[in-house]
Amino acid sequence: MTRTEECRGAIAQAVRDVRERNPLAGSVTNAVTMDFVANAQLAVGGSAAMVYLPDEGEALVGMGEAVYVNMGTLLPVYEETVPATARAAHEAGKTCVLDPVGIGIGGLRTDILRGLAEFKPRIIRGNASEVIALAALWGLAGLGGDGPRGVDSTDAVAAAREAACALARFTGGAVAVSGAEDLVTDGTAVALSRGGSPLMGRVTGFGCSLGGVCAVYATVADPFTAALSAVAHFNAAGTRAAQAADAPASFKLAFIDGLYRATPEDVAANPLTVEEA
Amino acid sequence: MTRTEECRGAIAQAVRDVRERNPLAGSVTNAVTMDFVANAQLAVGGSAAMVYLPDEGEALVGMGEAVYVNMGTLLPVYEETVPATARAAHEAGKTCVLDPVGIGIGGLRTDILRGLAEFKPRIIRGNASEVIALAALWGLAGLGGDGPRGVDSTDAVAAAREAACALARFTGGAVAVSGAEDLVTDGTAVALSRGGSPLMGRVTGFGCSLGGVCAVYATVADPFTAALSAVAHFNAAGTRAAQAADAPASFKLAFIDGLYRATPEDVAANPLTVEEA
Amino acid sequence: MTRTEECRGAIAQAVRDVRERNPLAGSVTNAVTMDFVANAQLAVGGSAAMVYLPDEGEALVGMGEAVYVNMGTLLPVYEETVPATARAAHEAGKTCVLDPVGIGIGGLRTDILRGLAEFKPRIIRGNASEVIALAALWGLAGLGGDGPRGVDSTDAVAAAREAACALARFTGGAVAVSGAEDLVTDGTAVALSRGGSPLMGRVTGFGCSLGGVCAVYATVADPFTAALSAVAHFNAAGTRAAQAADAPASFKLAFIDGLYRATPEDVAANPLTVEEA
Repeated sequence: MTRTEECRGAIAQAVRDVRERNPLAGSVTNAVTMDFVANAQLAVGGSAAMVYLPDEGEALVGMGEAVYVNMGTLLPVYEETVPATARAAHEAGKTCVLDPVGIGIGGLRTDILRGLAEFKPRIIRGNASEVIALAALWGLAGLGGDGPRGVDSTDAVAAAREAACALARFTGGAVAVSGAEDLVTDGTAVALSRGGSPLMGRVTGFGCSLGGVCAVYATVADPFTAALSAVAHFNAAGTRAAQAADAPASFKLAFIDGLYRATPEDVAANPLTVEEA
Repeated sequence: MTRTEECRGAIAQAVRDVRERNPLAGSVTNAVTMDFVANAQLAVGGSAAMVYLPDEGEALVGMGEAVYVNMGTLLPVYEETVPATARAAHEAGKTCVLDPVGIGIGGLRTDILRGLAEFKPRIIRGNASEVIALAALWGLAGLGGDGPRGVDSTDAVAAAREAACALARFTGGAVAVSGAEDLVTDGTAVALSRGGSPLMGRVTGFGCSLGGVCAVYATVADPFTAALSAVAHFNAAGTRAAQAADAPASFKLAFIDGLYRATPEDVAANPLTVEEA
Repeated sequence: MTRTEECRGAIAQAVRDVRERNPLAGSVTNAVTMDFVANAQLAVGGSAAMVYLPDEGEALVGMGEAVYVNMGTLLPVYEETVPATARAAHEAGKTCVLDPVGIGIGGLRTDILRGLAEFKPRIIRGNASEVIALAALWGLAGLGGDGPRGVDSTDAVAAAREAACALARFTGGAVAVSGAEDLVTDGTAVALSRGGSPLMGRVTGFGCSLGGVCAVYATVADPFTAALSAVAHFNAAGTRAAQAADAPASFKLAFIDGLYRATPEDVAANPLTVEEA
């Protein structure tokens, strides 16, 4: 069995396990897209809860096997909540999924993100510029601040490959880079997942909700399998939705319905290549 | 005329009154589902406004006949806002609808919920485990902390019957317990309302938006009639939506459209049984 | 060429420019409708980012040519964030779009809105009662506090004409008054734009998302053209959506799809009259 075939098997199993167990993955997340994150988590078979306060973030870690942290719309209280939640996950040996969205905007955001290196979030999900910027912020070698920013194309994903691998090796987990072709790595293997639609760029929250679904899958699988299952599930549903809809609101609706309808086999069969890092 | 027939008449009147008067029911509510709450309130014919600050919560009480308080995504300022809003409603003799979502997560949430007993919110809306936990928190007799939590089935609703009746007698208002079959009581009568769809569990915010619609109906009716009208309206629209859609996003869309389209007669005709408490 | 024809040409150019440049318009905005604001901004071809913190509001001003400030769900930190963002835009000579929603609710809201006069936001977007109340709060002559409040009809828009012109002359920018017929003025010309649907009043966030789209157009055009382009785009998409849908959720979906599908010519052709102020 090839590595790609092994991955397909692990993906199908993760999809089945989530459907069967309805696992909770709590979130400290972006106010813009909370509704989309929760509905995507529910559509794949998980359960959702969102909080703002430090002790509530810690409580969510205790209630589930994984937690999602997205700092999109940073509130003052996040200065405590984000580190407390990431620390609690780290100490409990549970997966924290980090979305470093908005990296570089404002001082508090940078301070919080810098400090998260200590808690090694096991899954990092971002676009190419965010992944490159986070690797630079954490001082991982060979990664200046000169990478592309605000660009989110196939080329940009390729440009973030080194940064993604460095981050994955540093955390001992996985990194997912979103773009026209998505990259997922654990620092050893690099998986490339294809599908979706350019309309994903005309609707807010596809990145955020992918992070939330990574956390759902992380309740039943290792970080690499979890991130890859979430990415494959999104690509499979996105490809299907693009056949049904040609404008953003109807595309989003068809996408969420598609997350719900996709079978484990559909997700596992989504175009995938696995290679050495 | 039987009690059930009386209830159907009162429900139809409440639906007509809301459509005619377009009443405001302000909210201090959950960030995840604010959009769904407001859109459900508008779809049934009401008007919506959401605030975070203490004096703004008090102002909303002054501007309408009822107010909705849902603490889903608790912010630090809610330590003042939630009690101030519930107190203002209590002192003005207006209905405060309380959704004790997330009860048991974090210290501030427990402290705030404990303190709300003093202001006797006239409608309480929750799932079975939340209703049982709130009755226990408020020290109502015969209700240990051993009830089902995180469960939301027909059995669970039946298990919360005693707690719901005790809460309703304590506040002098009504309690709605959400599940496969919904229970509404004023401590004397127990109404059972059927309908909806299991897909309601695959979309975030049906509970929150039901609370918001209870507040809209509470601007034109007594707490028991208001809660029963909201529950019947949701069940009627949910049953209809389940005939039109078999996946979560299209179901939510059909549900909101269904709230808007349902006539007073449709809502009153939704399956209903009323019995002694 | 008549003034109306000139306006149609400028509108078509603005729509083309936004589609081509994908400009960022950051927001400090209402939690209820953030998702709708962002999705409307993306559907017309812009890019969106929402923040809560003062230095992040300033950073968004630096990152784009315009910024949107809507105080719907005021948070304590907005005491700093809103003035800091409006000041930064003023000092940089960029357009701040202000939506004075909720004017009159609570003390902090009034204090913040009063202080914004100093930073002369170049576009103000509100319903008639909000525009009249803001002109009164800023002490612009001949405008008592006796105007209609909470009313949003054609008559109300006409009643706000004087207030809108006074505000536009004071800021040197433009004011858009939303109603059955929308009014846009720069204090010299008054444009009346028709279209849309009464269903817009049964869905939350049409006003907020219009403000966000004004900011997108303000990145490529002067305030009057920007506000007029946004209003015409909304009316064109709303008229089309009303042909496709007769209930609120399906109407909102068709509307967002319609924003995306409308061509520059469709937007420019929307019913429009331009007259002297």
